Amino acid sequence: MAEYHTFSTEDAMRFADEHSGLFGDHSKLSCEEFGDGNLNLVFRVSNDKGTSLIVKQALPYARCVGESWPLTIDRARIEAQVLLKHRKLCPEHTVEVLHYDAEQAAILMEDLKHYRILRTELISGKQFAHLAPQMASYLANTLFYTSDFALTGPNKKQQVGKFLNPELCLITEDLFFTDPYCNHERNNIHAEIRQQAQQLWHDEALQAEVAQLKADFLSKPQALLHGDVHSGSIFINEENCKVIDAEFGFYGPIGFDVGSLIGNLLLNYLGHFGLTQDTDARQQHQDYLVSQVQSLWQEFSAQFTQLMRSECHEPALQNSLYQQRFMQQLWADTLGYAGCELIRRTVGLAHVADLDKISNSTVRGQCEAKALQLGRDLIMQRHSLANMAQLMQLLHSLSER
Amino acid sequence: MAEYHTFSTEDAMRFADEHSGLFGDHSKLSCEEFGDGNLNLVFRVSNDKGTSLIVKQALPYARCVGESWPLTIDRARIEAQVLLKHRKLCPEHTVEVLHYDAEQAAILMEDLKHYRILRTELISGKQFAHLAPQMASYLANTLFYTSDFALTGPNKKQQVGKFLNPELCLITEDLFFTDPYCNHERNNIHAEIRQQAQQLWHDEALQAEVAQLKADFLSKPQALLHGDVHSGSIFINEENCKVIDAEFGFYGPIGFDVGSLIGNLLLNYLGHFGLTQDTDARQQHQDYLVSQVQSLWQEFSAQFTQLMRSECHEPALQNSLYQQRFMQQLWADTLGYAGCELIRRTVGLAHVADLDKISNSTVRGQCEAKALQLGRDLIMQRHSLANMAQLMQLLHSLSER
Repeated sequence: MAEYHTFSTEDAMRFADEHSGLFGDHSKLSCEEFGDGNLNLVFRVSNDKGTSLIVKQALPYARCVGESWPLTIDRARIEAQVLLKHRKLCPEHTVEVLHYDAEQAAILMEDLKHYRILRTELISGKQFAHLAPQMASYLANTLFYTSDFALTGPNKKQQVGKFLNPELCLITEDLFFTDPYCNHERNNIHAEIRQQAQQLWHDEALQAEVAQLKADFLSKPQALLHGDVHSGSIFINEENCKVIDAEFGFYGPIGFDVGSLIGNLLLNYLGHFGLTQDTDARQQHQDYLVSQVQSLWQEFSAQFTQLMRSECHEPALQNSLYQQRFMQQLWADTLGYAGCELIRRTVGLAHVADLDKISNSTVRGQCEAKALQLGRDLIMQRHSLANMAQLMQLLHSLSER
Repeated sequence: MAEYHTFSTEDAMRFADEHSGLFGDHSKLSCEEFGDGNLNLVFRVSNDKGTSLIVKQALPYARCVGESWPLTIDRARIEAQVLLKHRKLCPEHTVEVLHYDAEQAAILMEDLKHYRILRTELISGKQFAHLAPQMASYLANTLFYTSDFALTGPNKKQQVGKFLNPELCLITEDLFFTDPYCNHERNNIHAEIRQQAQQLWHDEALQAEVAQLKADFLSKPQALLHGDVHSGSIFINEENCKVIDAEFGFYGPIGFDVGSLIGNLLLNYLGHFGLTQDTDARQQHQDYLVSQVQSLWQEFSAQFTQLMRSECHEPALQNSLYQQRFMQQLWADTLGYAGCELIRRTVGLAHVADLDKISNSTVRGQCEAKALQLGRDLIMQRHSLANMAQLMQLLHSLSER
């Protein structure tokens, strides 16, 4: 193909046809563009027998703000390479990439049409017992095997260099760690919680903790993160879940991925105070979410610990006391990043439907205030919350306020 | 020039003549090779008027073990680029690079013929009041201005990618953090301290702390380190000191550079128990070293703190509470890496003359035992030694044992 141009549906069909044997020679292809993201075109290419694939092409700008916000199309390389790497490490729960074209910044991948977006499902009150154990396995395997425990120093450094991802990291650096804690024009603050939001701008004790979490985001390349594990990046059905959208991938602190996901489960937990009127149904769904958070950490930490014990190739890191402390610090990091996710999704640029969909604005404001409070508590208490039981206590005390 | 070949003295003269205007057209050049390192050829090229320059060429193998240990000549690029960067940030105390040739892995640089190697001077009991303040300024400026405090996220990542330096980092990773704590064939253990050395191999509490320091060396790219600030990399005279030999440079934990230097001053301190018989002279020199360690940390931390306050371009890191904690952690890191330097220089592959030159092997063994003890204390107590006064107490208690 020629130099980069944005794909038409015709281009997407040709691309899918060329790079997969799935369709056969004479298949009748159709194509629709259905991207609801802001950064990419997403096409579904199908033949008349019901076989389909996805073509995702990176746009050279962020679509939500028009062409005024240019953004490297190299992120398609990052996305493809992270997904290929993670799929090697956890094939069950990573979307399959069939082909990546650097010039067109386009990825041909498996169509998860029998899956739905986790966020939508959780908002509608659906529950999946396999969510936590499967995501725990995804996180433990992808993060352990790309860390210093598993890679030699030189191999790790080569990987770090391949996945520097400066432009997309900068988005997270700004939106996640800076904007919510100052009066930034990118913030999106509902009138009902303006006062609580403003408190964040003057909360120096909190800002000191967020500075530490940001410094680690900038300078703690522990493992190849997905970088954006929110419930919109997870597809799920009755049997399985799969992770997509890895364009924010980079070498960063392991707790960022784990914490992002826990943060999103907690956002859904808080959202249901407004989304679900039936108190029994609400309680039941919130209990489900709590059990998922518990099980996610327990299974993740059990698997990661087991991998450290049996698969650590770096002699100096085989020390069991060090490994215990590593898990303790990882727990604190996880809580901290979960807290940041709660706060930035409430007052920052990118909200979540879990809160925004609450129709009564007073109730929404109450839920958002809880999100800010819980976020702050998680960040401030991340070293003193010794275990999951104490986190659960914090959650229950919050519900009663 | 053609593809890489090891320089003859003729080549070195031609190289120096081509890339500097210093010699003039008809100067009579002479050249001697005097490298005592193991990895490089070092030529002094002089004209008949006393002007001279140094040509340093990286060998594609480590000379000490012949051609059997291949080593990338890309380290000449690292060395040249680190020195150029550090010289921009601290021109007074960084050797000047005039030209770098990638193909020949050769660097043309200023000749420090009016300087001597700090280690040799300290061993002979020389004292320089300007050592600590000047090195404090070198460390504060080079480390601050290459850190997240001063660089944007994207700019920092680009720099990290440029200075990954996998091969030379691996040498440090092995020799500094792994070998001394196990029965490794590369270790060089004098018979007199074999028992104390063996204790290191079974000291799991110590190994857990060293694991943390190694993990940080692997995954805490805080700033562009020199990477090898021992007293053989510092040239000094009555007015000034300059840092050379930056081939180990990479983005790593700031405390590594500061701790390496402090570790070397402490090695000299301990060495003089054996090197200097006259107890008054010894005491006087050791008092000098103690005052230098104190002043190094005090001036470094004062300058770094001042730079954080006035030159921090990253809004999230301007928080003063965070900056205080950053300095606290940096102090602990510094002590830890100083401790590692004491231990690895005593039992690892690369010894220092400060200890090895002690002619009486019993006395040398006593000094080496103190180095191991002090090294362990520094590593184990790095979080509890609250300040320099407590470090000094530790040092005095050691002298009395």
